[in-house]
Amino acid sequence: MQQKKKVVIVGGGFGGLQAARSLKRAPVDVTLIDRRNFHLFQPLLYQVATGGLSPANIAATLRNLLRRMSNVRVIMDEATGFDLERKRILLVDGEAEYDTLVVATGSRHHYFGNEDWEGLAPGLKTVEDALEIRSRILSAFEAAEKTGDAGEAERLLTFVVVGGGATGVELAGALAEISRDTLLHEFRRIDTSTARILLIEGADRILQTYPDELSAAAQSALERLGVEVRLAHMVRRLDEGSVTVETGGRLEVIPAGTVLWGAGVKASPLGPKLAAAAGTETDGQDRIVVEPDCTVPGHPDIFVVGDLARFDHGRRKPLPGVAPVAMQQGRFVARVIKARLSGKTVTGAFRYRDYGSMATVGRSKAVADFGRLRLKGYPAWGAWLFIHLMKIVQFQDRLLVFVQWAWNYFTYNRYARLITGRWNPLGATSERAERRPAVEGKT
Amino acid sequence: MQQKKKVVIVGGGFGGLQAARSLKRAPVDVTLIDRRNFHLFQPLLYQVATGGLSPANIAATLRNLLRRMSNVRVIMDEATGFDLERKRILLVDGEAEYDTLVVATGSRHHYFGNEDWEGLAPGLKTVEDALEIRSRILSAFEAAEKTGDAGEAERLLTFVVVGGGATGVELAGALAEISRDTLLHEFRRIDTSTARILLIEGADRILQTYPDELSAAAQSALERLGVEVRLAHMVRRLDEGSVTVETGGRLEVIPAGTVLWGAGVKASPLGPKLAAAAGTETDGQDRIVVEPDCTVPGHPDIFVVGDLARFDHGRRKPLPGVAPVAMQQGRFVARVIKARLSGKTVTGAFRYRDYGSMATVGRSKAVADFGRLRLKGYPAWGAWLFIHLMKIVQFQDRLLVFVQWAWNYFTYNRYARLITGRWNPLGATSERAERRPAVEGKT
Repeated sequence: MQQKKKVVIVGGGFGGLQAARSLKRAPVDVTLIDRRNFHLFQPLLYQVATGGLSPANIAATLRNLLRRMSNVRVIMDEATGFDLERKRILLVDGEAEYDTLVVATGSRHHYFGNEDWEGLAPGLKTVEDALEIRSRILSAFEAAEKTGDAGEAERLLTFVVVGGGATGVELAGALAEISRDTLLHEFRRIDTSTARILLIEGADRILQTYPDELSAAAQSALERLGVEVRLAHMVRRLDEGSVTVETGGRLEVIPAGTVLWGAGVKASPLGPKLAAAAGTETDGQDRIVVEPDCTVPGHPDIFVVGDLARFDHGRRKPLPGVAPVAMQQGRFVARVIKARLSGKTVTGAFRYRDYGSMATVGRSKAVADFGRLRLKGYPAWGAWLFIHLMKIVQFQDRLLVFVQWAWNYFTYNRYARLITGRWNPLGATSERAERRPAVEGKT
Repeated sequence: MQQKKKVVIVGGGFGGLQAARSLKRAPVDVTLIDRRNFHLFQPLLYQVATGGLSPANIAATLRNLLRRMSNVRVIMDEATGFDLERKRILLVDGEAEYDTLVVATGSRHHYFGNEDWEGLAPGLKTVEDALEIRSRILSAFEAAEKTGDAGEAERLLTFVVVGGGATGVELAGALAEISRDTLLHEFRRIDTSTARILLIEGADRILQTYPDELSAAAQSALERLGVEVRLAHMVRRLDEGSVTVETGGRLEVIPAGTVLWGAGVKASPLGPKLAAAAGTETDGQDRIVVEPDCTVPGHPDIFVVGDLARFDHGRRKPLPGVAPVAMQQGRFVARVIKARLSGKTVTGAFRYRDYGSMATVGRSKAVADFGRLRLKGYPAWGAWLFIHLMKIVQFQDRLLVFVQWAWNYFTYNRYARLITGRWNPLGATSERAERRPAVEGKT
């Protein structure tokens, strides 16, 4: 009996998971490698960061999602490099041999050369990021309640969100709702509704991938929520306790207790490693420039999909780093692999079907761009809610997320408001830092 | 206008929260201080540790719980000591002045002089503990799937739970269910149902606070689930990768991938500090020995309730460290405070009304001791389920927990199975350790 061909997929995000699923019943041995044991529904991660949902509401274990596919094996490990000659991917714990490799390790946030800003202004890519942001936001209100100093309270109640893309808009909108509604009657000394929320955007409008009209609608929705939208502002400096922005050559220092980063992404570190090993090029965001069939130039056995791929064939702009692109590429790649197995040569190029995009500003406020159909306000929000609920991978999560949201909607409450983990709102003087499980010192 | 008397409550657990709530509409200014921003429903924490529930399902913010009580102020801070002469409690961020002080800071796990064991065998007291345990359990299965070495896989699939009290029984039962049911079809190389689960108890029966008959029922339920119950075994040594136990003078080394600690508790570190300041005594578990009215001897203005108090007036054994004791003491103390305000002298002693106790072994298996009525099996489990759902503090959580449990029950799934945080299943060689948010280095 001939041994089955080995397909190794690295990354269990939208692209990798879809590729694995689309290889169901194909006569190949599939190995899916991820350093996490779960698939994360990233479009709702901002809800975790703002206390509306728990991490498990928007994540499902890869093993559970793939348990019925007997030709798929899941390995929890981290890819560290490539040995293309021996057709192996190097892992922290060993290596994996492939006949066909699919790399889908996505992107992470990016500080444009100021990587030391990460500690001052966390971005939102992982569950840990979301819990860190949640702790910071809630701790800022706690600290403001405690301080007797009015100026300090004002600083603590200033939240700066950098970047007017979907993530920044969603975070700013949720922050406004938290301070205006959720926390309203819970504090005694401070009035949380006086919290100042700034959204800093370098360009002349927010949500730049949307039509002008929807950018304007989103901005006005944010402003009605009390968010100060600052267009054509660049962040020049971050310090503990303040942000320095520049507009028209003028610098302004904004004292702020919390700064959140939604300004840029870069491909995962595996991108440059693969490019070096394959002798091919990356773009400014470290993405691998792929062929029309999503392979790496000169390496028909290696596919790259999702945020890690730069795909611009037959397009004015490269495909955006969004879930639908990754999923469609994953499905396409699985189709190519299956066709090759049956001896067919696949010459067709990947074509993206754009069904539209949407961003939510808050309660009953969103924008949706379905090409000719452009929605805003309640209809856009309804469409957003419906599509996101339908898309969440497990039925059970759908039900729980729905119950959760219904609750949040009708009560104006947010139930997952725990300050947990390592972020220490009591400052460096706290004894708490010493009381962590001993094992932490070892990792 | 005369200034209102100040009541300061330290600790937002069952005792402190109940005291605060029972002072509703009393003409006092109440300040509730806790280092966490939430109340935790600890009896269900083992469900978080074993992937059945999310932390936010069993926690609610103190502010939200107390938002309608305008005479209560919540402060997130940590008590560090006492200045009884000036009637102040010292905090990390300043101090708080009181006329009446209620100390309810509870207990933590305890290693009987081997505190360095904490890293090797985490206990279950906080949300972080639960997430750490969850990560370790799930990571052990992941590592076993990856290793090619049969002996190493066997070691990784050995789970040792130390302590046959309610926590140990609940963890062992849940571990058996995870390996026998939840994970059954999710792995390819290992058979999770071969996992070995040992429950180590020093005495001659588990659940010692229950009647013999129920201890035996719980043991047989555990054994039917495949748990090895080892009575009269003492843990003598913990090493990375093994546990050494002793019975009848014989030592046995058990190679084990995961060791969990449910063997002992000790009062919070504030106990000895308060005892020293007040010139009074603590017991072997650092609990403050209190007067019949829950005050500290010689200090009628200081009450101690819950796990921090040792109360043995009119009893053969001191009151156990369980939620009903803490809640009843909290309510009692509030009544004494209110009576004093109206000029009455309260001479009555606190009396505990014991409504019974219950422990769950797993799906449809539990024991319940209601005095003359003793339940086991399905009826006990039904009672356990009903009472715990009713007791969870917020309506919304009740609904969500119910949906969650119904789902888990009918599908044998556990939905909150994320490996997150700092526990690193890939071992010390992983690059992952380097990729944590930069801010962590600062705390």
